[in-house]
Amino acid sequence: MNDSQPTRVVIVGAGFGGLAAARALADAPVQITIVDRQNHHLFQPLLYQVATAALNPSDIAQPIRHILAKQANCQPMLAEVTSIDTESKVVETTAGELPFDYLVLATGATHAYFGNDHWADHAPGLKSVEDALDIRRRILLAFEKAELATDADERTRLMTFVVVGAGPTGVEVAGAIREIATNTLRKDFRQIDTTTSRVQLIEAGPAVLAAFPEKLQQSASEQLESLGVEVRTNTMVTDITADGVTTSDGYVKAATVIWAAGVAASPLGADVTDETDRSGRAVVAPDLSVPGHPNVFAIGDVSAATDANGVDVPGVGAAAVQGGEHAAASIIADLANTARPSFVYNDKGSMATIGRSKAVADLGPRFRFGGFVAWVLWCAVHVWLLVDFRSKLRTISSWAWQYVTGSRSARLITGYTAEDTTA
Amino acid sequence: MNDSQPTRVVIVGAGFGGLAAARALADAPVQITIVDRQNHHLFQPLLYQVATAALNPSDIAQPIRHILAKQANCQPMLAEVTSIDTESKVVETTAGELPFDYLVLATGATHAYFGNDHWADHAPGLKSVEDALDIRRRILLAFEKAELATDADERTRLMTFVVVGAGPTGVEVAGAIREIATNTLRKDFRQIDTTTSRVQLIEAGPAVLAAFPEKLQQSASEQLESLGVEVRTNTMVTDITADGVTTSDGYVKAATVIWAAGVAASPLGADVTDETDRSGRAVVAPDLSVPGHPNVFAIGDVSAATDANGVDVPGVGAAAVQGGEHAAASIIADLANTARPSFVYNDKGSMATIGRSKAVADLGPRFRFGGFVAWVLWCAVHVWLLVDFRSKLRTISSWAWQYVTGSRSARLITGYTAEDTTA
Repeated sequence: MNDSQPTRVVIVGAGFGGLAAARALADAPVQITIVDRQNHHLFQPLLYQVATAALNPSDIAQPIRHILAKQANCQPMLAEVTSIDTESKVVETTAGELPFDYLVLATGATHAYFGNDHWADHAPGLKSVEDALDIRRRILLAFEKAELATDADERTRLMTFVVVGAGPTGVEVAGAIREIATNTLRKDFRQIDTTTSRVQLIEAGPAVLAAFPEKLQQSASEQLESLGVEVRTNTMVTDITADGVTTSDGYVKAATVIWAAGVAASPLGADVTDETDRSGRAVVAPDLSVPGHPNVFAIGDVSAATDANGVDVPGVGAAAVQGGEHAAASIIADLANTARPSFVYNDKGSMATIGRSKAVADLGPRFRFGGFVAWVLWCAVHVWLLVDFRSKLRTISSWAWQYVTGSRSARLITGYTAEDTTA
Repeated sequence: MNDSQPTRVVIVGAGFGGLAAARALADAPVQITIVDRQNHHLFQPLLYQVATAALNPSDIAQPIRHILAKQANCQPMLAEVTSIDTESKVVETTAGELPFDYLVLATGATHAYFGNDHWADHAPGLKSVEDALDIRRRILLAFEKAELATDADERTRLMTFVVVGAGPTGVEVAGAIREIATNTLRKDFRQIDTTTSRVQLIEAGPAVLAAFPEKLQQSASEQLESLGVEVRTNTMVTDITADGVTTSDGYVKAATVIWAAGVAASPLGADVTDETDRSGRAVVAPDLSVPGHPNVFAIGDVSAATDANGVDVPGVGAAAVQGGEHAAASIIADLANTARPSFVYNDKGSMATIGRSKAVADLGPRFRFGGFVAWVLWCAVHVWLLVDFRSKLRTISSWAWQYVTGSRSARLITGYTAEDTTA
């Protein structure tokens, strides 16, 4: 470390993990540059609500500069990282080079098509605001086209929605589409009855919410079915076209397919280490550093970590936050010439919502429940986790309005051209 | 009229005029189809606030189906009208034909580049949600690029904004950009001082707000200058490139140019009549019908009308609303075999806002004033005019937040790729 200049920390990614690392270093004698290719931090657990027209993008996304405005030792940078050289200790970006003393890689993961990337056009995933607005447009346009359709089979196809992958995202999207169809849009159309729309949730494994205890998987399935979602487990998707979805258990004609399956870590994981798992995640040491480079950390969904107790760290927001805080604590320990702490993952539980008054919550062996209470808890926790008071206020008011009126506030079709409904 | 089926009314355009016509026919023995190429009604007076990151699109846009959900005799249709045949009484759309007994054309007007359409890429106008989001992205990215810039001249160019046209829209956008630069973004950047940004408002005529009384033009000029806007009247734009703007009074290097000048009526005006003025507006009779076709009305900005007292009807929202109501009243009179009423335009006055606590209001000879009181009135009227209670609530809360914190809530850059800041 060069004593004549502060220690340079580069953080790549301003999601849960990157932001947590930056904030935990607020009082440390370091100069931080946090790079993200977006200008905003995205609260991903609520992204499905933008996709289903319940929230606006700005309710769940805050400008990174605003979040970090008061942190004098941290400089945000809007650019894309193109490569990382851990030997020379330099990060290459579209806006110049960033030399570092410490690097925290927090670029996350996205969905994966299991080698069938051409499915992406017909079955978008849900990772960014643009994805969410694209899905919102597809859902709303499907109903608009159904309203104009003269052929009964085509009308049915337009009102059939398939969601692939029954993790929390898939479960939440599927439930929300049934909700928008049975509540919000019901009175809007004259030719079609939106309550007859079909939503299929297709899962290759034996159960929905694979990471949850069995009792809650059961509860979630029941709640989905009471909402009118057709749950198809033990079913693999083998092809997707503009017309519909081929599965191991038959073909379904559907105009709208949403992909919520598979994990692909950010490709930068492979830049910092050769040891990656089959999802591309960087395999890290128990202190979350990359083998051979104690000054390089990989945290959150881009990494595959096992904590000091041998517990596999899951790909959830809370784990990314803890990882970011641990990387910061390790840097601080180094600068103080003390031993780095151990990383012990503190499992705060999981929750998933199903429609507007149902959910499942797993907060430990004695705190597992489903239904309305779980849903209230889910709402409370998610509002609390929002990074910004104004967002909390806006989201609460949006939800309150939605709950009282059944009206989903953000039902705009934007970025649309008339060709999309040409007869 | 065929007694065995209801009278068919086709309304093209669900802006102020078209919606007013539809609603005024709610109890009439007609079957209405209202066609719009967007799914939402846009409250255009506040569009500039979406462009300057103060409001979200959904705060000022409501789904047409939602607005008309309770009107049983009115069917919304999402499609683009491609042509109108007034002889055969058929409207051609991208989703099929619409025969009509009565037609109300309410497709509005947009900005015009005086024959220099190639300027549009460098100087977008502000007509739709997509336009507003594009302008928002350009403004926010300009500051992001300035933060990364290494050349001082380029940095200055990136922080220079030109608005062309000093009508209400241009005045409002120019004031809002100075506001975002001097208040909201001030603490967000480390390398640049956003308060040094320059905003030039260029106007070919001798004064800003040409349609307002002279005293208020003066007030507006002063308020703009106190906000830091450089007002350049009697100045014509002769060229626009990606680098800057050439005027009759010199060249200005500017990375962001916004076009708020010129009027071009919707091309459908020329479909319903050969008599159009030089802005393409359909010249109508005093009862707002098209010469030779008493069953075809053109209202709002697509039309050039003179009322029963010889008063030229201005291109403002209130005039479109009154025109739509008059068209409806005329149809109702026809169906009741009574005489059509005369159309008398009731001038409710004009207002324009300049920044967050300034405005000018012209509400008649004894009610002309500028400054804070005008601004409060402007806010109150605009909230009142919003079509939907939820929008009123959200807009009030957005503005209250903005006023208290100086924070503009919708500061997202969306639809952006990293190439936009490549060094």
